[in-house]
Amino acid sequence: MEIAVSRKAHFNAAHRLHVKEWDDEKNKAFFGNCNNLNYHGHNYDLIVTVSGEIDPVSGFLIDMKVLGAIIHEEIENRFDHKNLNMDCEAFKELNPTAENIAVVIWNFLRNRLEKHLKLKVILYETERNFVEYNGN
Amino acid sequence: MEIAVSRKAHFNAAHRLHVKEWDDEKNKAFFGNCNNLNYHGHNYDLIVTVSGEIDPVSGFLIDMKVLGAIIHEEIENRFDHKNLNMDCEAFKELNPTAENIAVVIWNFLRNRLEKHLKLKVILYETERNFVEYNGN
Amino acid sequence: MEIAVSRKAHFNAAHRLHVKEWDDEKNKAFFGNCNNLNYHGHNYDLIVTVSGEIDPVSGFLIDMKVLGAIIHEEIENRFDHKNLNMDCEAFKELNPTAENIAVVIWNFLRNRLEKHLKLKVILYETERNFVEYNGN
Amino acid sequence: MEIAVSRKAHFNAAHRLHVKEWDDEKNKAFFGNCNNLNYHGHNYDLIVTVSGEIDPVSGFLIDMKVLGAIIHEEIENRFDHKNLNMDCEAFKELNPTAENIAVVIWNFLRNRLEKHLKLKVILYETERNFVEYNGN
Amino acid sequence: MEIAVSRKAHFNAAHRLHVKEWDDEKNKAFFGNCNNLNYHGHNYDLIVTVSGEIDPVSGFLIDMKVLGAIIHEEIENRFDHKNLNMDCEAFKELNPTAENIAVVIWNFLRNRLEKHLKLKVILYETERNFVEYNGN
Amino acid sequence: MEIAVSRKAHFNAAHRLHVKEWDDEKNKAFFGNCNNLNYHGHNYDLIVTVSGEIDPVSGFLIDMKVLGAIIHEEIENRFDHKNLNMDCEAFKELNPTAENIAVVIWNFLRNRLEKHLKLKVILYETERNFVEYNGN
Repeated sequence: MEIAVSRKAHFNAAHRLHVKEWDDEKNKAFFGNCNNLNYHGHNYDLIVTVSGEIDPVSGFLIDMKVLGAIIHEEIENRFDHKNLNMDCEAFKELNPTAENIAVVIWNFLRNRLEKHLKLKVILYETERNFVEYNGN
Repeated sequence: MEIAVSRKAHFNAAHRLHVKEWDDEKNKAFFGNCNNLNYHGHNYDLIVTVSGEIDPVSGFLIDMKVLGAIIHEEIENRFDHKNLNMDCEAFKELNPTAENIAVVIWNFLRNRLEKHLKLKVILYETERNFVEYNGN
Repeated sequence: MEIAVSRKAHFNAAHRLHVKEWDDEKNKAFFGNCNNLNYHGHNYDLIVTVSGEIDPVSGFLIDMKVLGAIIHEEIENRFDHKNLNMDCEAFKELNPTAENIAVVIWNFLRNRLEKHLKLKVILYETERNFVEYNGN
Repeated sequence: MEIAVSRKAHFNAAHRLHVKEWDDEKNKAFFGNCNNLNYHGHNYDLIVTVSGEIDPVSGFLIDMKVLGAIIHEEIENRFDHKNLNMDCEAFKELNPTAENIAVVIWNFLRNRLEKHLKLKVILYETERNFVEYNGN
Repeated sequence: MEIAVSRKAHFNAAHRLHVKEWDDEKNKAFFGNCNNLNYHGHNYDLIVTVSGEIDPVSGFLIDMKVLGAIIHEEIENRFDHKNLNMDCEAFKELNPTAENIAVVIWNFLRNRLEKHLKLKVILYETERNFVEYNGN
Repeated sequence: MEIAVSRKAHFNAAHRLHVKEWDDEKNKAFFGNCNNLNYHGHNYDLIVTVSGEIDPVSGFLIDMKVLGAIIHEEIENRFDHKNLNMDCEAFKELNPTAENIAVVIWNFLRNRLEKHLKLKVILYETERNFVEYNGN
C-alpha cells in the first residue's frame, strides 16, 4: 500500500544557459535570449514527491515538517537568491538548464532520504515550462 | 488505448492529528501544532482520476457528471463542513493525516466504480502539501 | 506618487459560525452547515496591502521582510492551527465570519504600521469566497 | 536517466457533444446541456510532456522553443478560435469530448516528434475536468 | 465601516464578435479570429463583489449562499453552456465583447440586490484578459 | 459608464537591490540576500489595466490585441531575459525594487496610450509579493 507525499517549495535565482565547449555564436544561436551575457532569472517552483508505505501508527509516510526542513537546507539555502552559474558549485561546469537543475536537486535530496523511500522532483522554471525527474 | 479522466472537488473540514496509543506529551512532540486540542482546519482539494478505455460511440470514458455525483455523495456529503475526528465514522479510530484521508476516500470511491476502471486520488491538504494514492 | 505593496500570507484554522444571542434552531437555520457543532475549517489566504510614498533612496515603500514579520507575529502566530472560536481571544464574543475576521486582522495590523501608511486586507475563506476591508 | 519536459499551451474553442448515430432525444438525455444545439465553448489548457534522455552537451531533452513551435503549428493553429465540430476536419465524424480531443492532439504531436521520445498530453476542458493520454 | 464580499462563479459559453452595422470585411479586419463565423468559446470566470455595512448581529454583509443562488439564477442559468449570440436575448443586438457581457451581468445582478449595497463585477474571458465594471 | 480592461503579461529577469550611495555593508544589512553581488532573478507577472468608456459600436474599450502588442514592445522587449541592473537603461541609476519597476513600466505604457484612458499596473515579483501603481 504505497502512498506519495508531495511538498512545494521555491527559490528565486539568476542563471544563463551557456555551453563552455561552444563558441559565443553557437551558444547565441542555440540558446537565444536564454544565453544573455548578463543573466536573467526565474522564480523556480519545486515539488518534491516521496513515496513509500504509511506508518500504521502515526499515519505519516514522512513528517512534512521534516521533509520541508530537508528541502530548505539542501535546496533553498543553496539556490535561493543566488546566481546559479556563478554562486553554486553544482553549476560551475554544468549548464543550468531546467533538466540539469532537476537532476542536481534530486541528487541532493536522495542523499538525505532513507533508502526505502522513492523520490521524484518536478521543477517549474515558469508556470508554462517544467521538468520531472525520478532517478530512473 | 487507455485514457485517464480527472475531476476536482473540495471540502472544508476541521481535524486534529492525534494517536490514541500515545500520551499527550508524545503527541505534542510528534505532531506539533497539528495536535492542537481544539482542532484546526483546511480547505481540502481533491482530484479523482479514473482510467480505462474510451467508449468508441459516446467518446466518454466515464460521464464526468456521474463521476461528480459519486464524489458528492461519497466524499463531500461525508466530510464537508465536518470535524473529521468527531463527526466522521472513518476517523473514530484512525488518525486523520492526509495520507489516511486519501486512503479512506479511495476506498469509498472504489466501491462505487466499475471493476475495470482504475482509480487514483490526489488530496491537497494545503496548496503546498498533498498526497496521492492509487490502491497499489 | 502613491504605490501599494501587497504580501500574501496564510493560516489554517477551525471555526464555527454561531450567534450566542440566538437559539440553536435559529443558528442552524441561518448558518446551515457552517454552524456544525464540532466545527469545520479552512486554509485562509490573506493579502495585506500597504500604500504610501516610495522612499526615494531605498526604492521601498516598506521592507517586505518587515511586513512579513509583522503579519507573522500578529496574525499567523495568533490564528494558525487554532480553533478561532475556542483558542482566540478576539472571537470569544465575536462570530468568526470572514467579514469579522478581516476586521480583526485589519485592527491588529493597523496598530503595528506607521500612521502615514494606508492599510487594506483581503481574506480568502476559500478560493471562491473572500472579503476586503480597508478601515473606512 | 530519463527526464520529462512539459510545456503549457492553450486554445479557446466552441464545441458541442453529439453522437450522429443517436437521435436528438438520446443525445439530449446523455449529454445534457453539453449537447446544446448552438454550441458552447471552453478555454482549453494543454500540457504536453515529452520524455527521454538529456543531451549531455546542451543539457536539453528538447528545446522548449522548438516544442512550443510544434504545439503552435499543430494544435493552436488548428483549434484556437474555432468551432471544433464545424471548422476542424478531425471532428467531422468524431464527437469532440475531452477524451477524443486529447487523443487527436496526441496523434498530431506524435507525428512531429522523434521516435525515441515518449509523449503524454493533459487537456483541461475546465480547471475542474481534465484528461490525460499517453498512447498506450 | 464598509466591507466588500466577493464570490466566484463561472460559465462556459460560445460567442463570436460581430458588429451587424459593419460588413464582413470590416468585421474580419477589426475582430480577427474572434469574428470566426462558426463561433469559438471560453470558460468565463466571474467575481461578484458586493459592499456595504456588516450586520452587527450575524457578522454577515450578505449571506454568501444567498449571493451564490442569485448568481446561479441570473447568470449561470442564462449563460452556461449557451451560445451567447444565438441563445441569449441580451446579445441579440449587442456584441458579446467581455466589456458588454460584464455590463449585462452587472445589470442583471443589480436588480436582485438591495439598494444600499454596492456592486462590482470582474469577468475573466481568459486568465490573461479580464474586465471590471461597477456601474459608475 | 467606465469599464476597466486588464491584460496579463510576463517577463523573466535578473536583478539585484543595491543603492549606490550606500556602502556594501549598509546595502547588505538593508537588502539582505536581495543584495547578492551576482544577482538573482524572478518571473515577473504584470497586469496592465486600462479604463475608460466602452465604444458603443465595437463594444471594446481598447482592442486587447493592440494593448498586448504595446505591452510586448514597451515592456517585454525591454525587460524579458535581461539583467535589469546591467542591461536596462531605466535602472542604470535607479534601484530595481518592485516599486520602482512598476513606476517605470507605468511611464513607458502611459506614453503609448491615449490621454483619455486611465492606466494602472500591478507587478508580481513573486506570487506572494506584488505592487500596484496608477500614477496618482
